[in-house]
Parts: sequence; structure tokens; C-alpha cells
Amino acid sequence: MTTKERILHTSLQLFNEQGIDAVTVRHIAKELGMSHGNLCYHFPNTDAIAEKLYEQLINELNAVLNEPASLDAVNLQTLYKLAAFVFEKLYKYKFLMQDFISLMRRIPSLKQKHRDLINNRRVFFKAGIDAGIQAGFLKPEIIAGQYENFFNQLFIIGDFWLVSAEILYEGKEEDKLLTYLNIAFTLIVPYLTEKGLAEYRELQKQTETLQ
Amino acid sequence: MTTKERILHTSLQLFNEQGIDAVTVRHIAKELGMSHGNLCYHFPNTDAIAEKLYEQLINELNAVLNEPASLDAVNLQTLYKLAAFVFEKLYKYKFLMQDFISLMRRIPSLKQKHRDLINNRRVFFKAGIDAGIQAGFLKPEIIAGQYENFFNQLFIIGDFWLVSAEILYEGKEEDKLLTYLNIAFTLIVPYLTEKGLAEYRELQKQTETLQ
Repeated sequence: MTTKERILHTSLQLFNEQGIDAVTVRHIAKELGMSHGNLCYHFPNTDAIAEKLYEQLINELNAVLNEPASLDAVNLQTLYKLAAFVFEKLYKYKFLMQDFISLMRRIPSLKQKHRDLINNRRVFFKAGIDAGIQAGFLKPEIIAGQYENFFNQLFIIGDFWLVSAEILYEGKEEDKLLTYLNIAFTLIVPYLTEKGLAEYRELQKQTETLQ
Repeated sequence: MTTKERILHTSLQLFNEQGIDAVTVRHIAKELGMSHGNLCYHFPNTDAIAEKLYEQLINELNAVLNEPASLDAVNLQTLYKLAAFVFEKLYKYKFLMQDFISLMRRIPSLKQKHRDLINNRRVFFKAGIDAGIQAGFLKPEIIAGQYENFFNQLFIIGDFWLVSAEILYEGKEEDKLLTYLNIAFTLIVPYLTEKGLAEYRELQKQTETLQ
């Protein structure tokens, strides 16, 4: 691991455990047994580290989502695996989700990056829906703009499930990820054809998540 | 208006315009031409004002939502009117939505009140869905727990559409409310029966919101 990678790795741990506002660069330097000056040579402040970690999250997501093969031979199980993959990554970087709005407010470049990301996702999701309709497990659009609204619903839930859970979720921490993956994934249920519903029931047998 | 009401009225304006963190009790007192001491006799700090405003929002919502008649003779138009009413109220108190997570974190009683509210809403929504199925415009549940997940999706979108808009929305401020009302309301579209879809098309003719 390079020094930069070690800084990012330790910062992510500390941010996730304590929240980004409770962690200073001195904290991180101390945890790494590194001088404050050496750390600041790499990153001037925690916001710069947060921005780099956001990029790292996006790169990890894109390594799979931008893979042209990811929508080949698409079925409901493929979509579920992709959704689970995304939720696990979001949970791995949970401090970003927990302080999403304050980070976006104080780091303008992050806000622009997130807008760009969402626009890319829109294209990807559209391709996924089209592939699902083609494969016969999703219904074609009934109302014009219906899937467009579906994406917008998904973006709000994708970005804010972790903070919503902070207020409303009363279960165990280790069940949180699967509970919210289920809440988000079942957005697709009423769009399923008979064939899609059969695939869904098959999926339910394989996972304990989907009730 | 009582002094208390005047304080709440002016605070809401200032909080909405500037965000709660930029407004102090001195600010509010000055705006009202009132002494700092007099204001603090009513409310010790801005968090106490925010909590009272949250209660005021909930009371305004409950005045309609707790009305037993609100689900009588239910049709899609009734549900749309209720949704529009809720979104307008949320927008009226937009500072609460914009700083939702930081307010909930630092005012524990607010967090508990919000949990209670959501649990009440769950009962109300369940009654609405049942009435809609009875009236024949909503489909019965296909997958067990489907409407329960639908409520959870709605709660996340209801609580976080305004902060999501802060990052992603690029349209005019005056169109924001209707844009997001549409995003939230169309969650119901894939649950509509043929009868429901006919009511939906009728609704589209009457409003410009629903594309």
C-alpha cells in the first residue's frame, strides 16, 4: 500500500466509526503513526480526503456497472446482484451517505461529480429496463415517463436510505443493509410481468432478504 | 397573533430563507423589534423554536389526515389532493426538510416524535390502500409485504425529496414542488388497475403536473 492508500484506508475507518466531523487530520496522522506535516503533504484537510474517498467509491462501482457485459443475458437475478453490490459499496463508505448533504454543501466539486454520476446512472438504468422488457420480465411503460420517475425515486432512496435508517430503523445493525436493499429492490415488483414474478419467487427462495 | 405566534411566524420565514444554522435568537428578536430577553422568555434557543415549528407542521397535517372523512369515497383524485396537500405543507416548512438530519441528531425528542408520526402514517396509508383496493382502482398485493415496502419507499422520498433536489434539481424553484410531488405520487402508478389508470388519465387532463 502506498502512503496515500494507507491514509485513505484509515480515514475511511475513522470516518465510518466516528462521523467525518469528529475526525481531524491530526487524528488520522496519529492513528497512522505519521507526522501531521507528512499527512498534509498528501491531503490538506479531511474534506480533500472525503472527496478522494467519494471518487474511490465511484470507481469501485463503475468497475462493475460500466462493464459492458453486466447487462448481457439480463434477468431479475442479475439485477438483484447488481443492486446488492451497490448497496454493499454504499454501506462500506457509509460516512459519505450519513453526511451526504453537508458534504455536498461544503464541497462544490463533489456536488457536480454527483450530478454527473446520476446522469450516467440514468443511461445505465434505462439500458437495464430496456433489456428487462426485451427479456420479457419487465412490463413496457404504461404511462409516459413512468420509468423516468422510477429512476428518480430510486436516486432519492439510493442516496438517503442510510440517513432515513438513522431515524426510523429499529432493527439490528447487521440486518440494516439487507432490510434497505429489500425496500429499494422491491420498487421493481409492480413492474414485473408474470415471467418476472416467477423469477422473483425463485429469487425469494434463494435469499432470506426478500420476504 | 400572540407573541409566541409572532415569534414562530417570523422564525419560520428566517429559517426558510437563510437556513436554521445561520439564524440566531438575536436575529429573530431584532426582526421582531423585541428584546433578546423577551424572546428567550418564550424560547431559550432556535432548537426550541424548530421543535415547536415541527409540531405546528404535524398539527396542520393532522387536521386533514386525521379527519375520519378523508378516506371516505376515496378515488385517485382524493389521494392526489392529499399528496399535494402534504407536499405543500412540507414546502411551507422547508427548513425542517433541508436540515432534517442535523435537527433529528441534535434534538432527540424530535427524532422520537418523527418515529411516532411515521408509525401513525403507516396506519393511515394502510387504510388508504385498503380503501383503494375496495374501490377497485388499486391492485391487491401480489407479493407479501409489497405495500409495506411501498410505504417505506414513500417515507424516504417524503422526508428527503427536498435535500435531494438541492443536489440534483436543475429546474426553476417555482416548479420544484410539483416536480417532486409528481415523482412521489407516480410511485402508485404501477399499482393501478385498469379502472385506476382511467382515473389517472382523467387526473392528467386536470393537472399539468403529471406528465
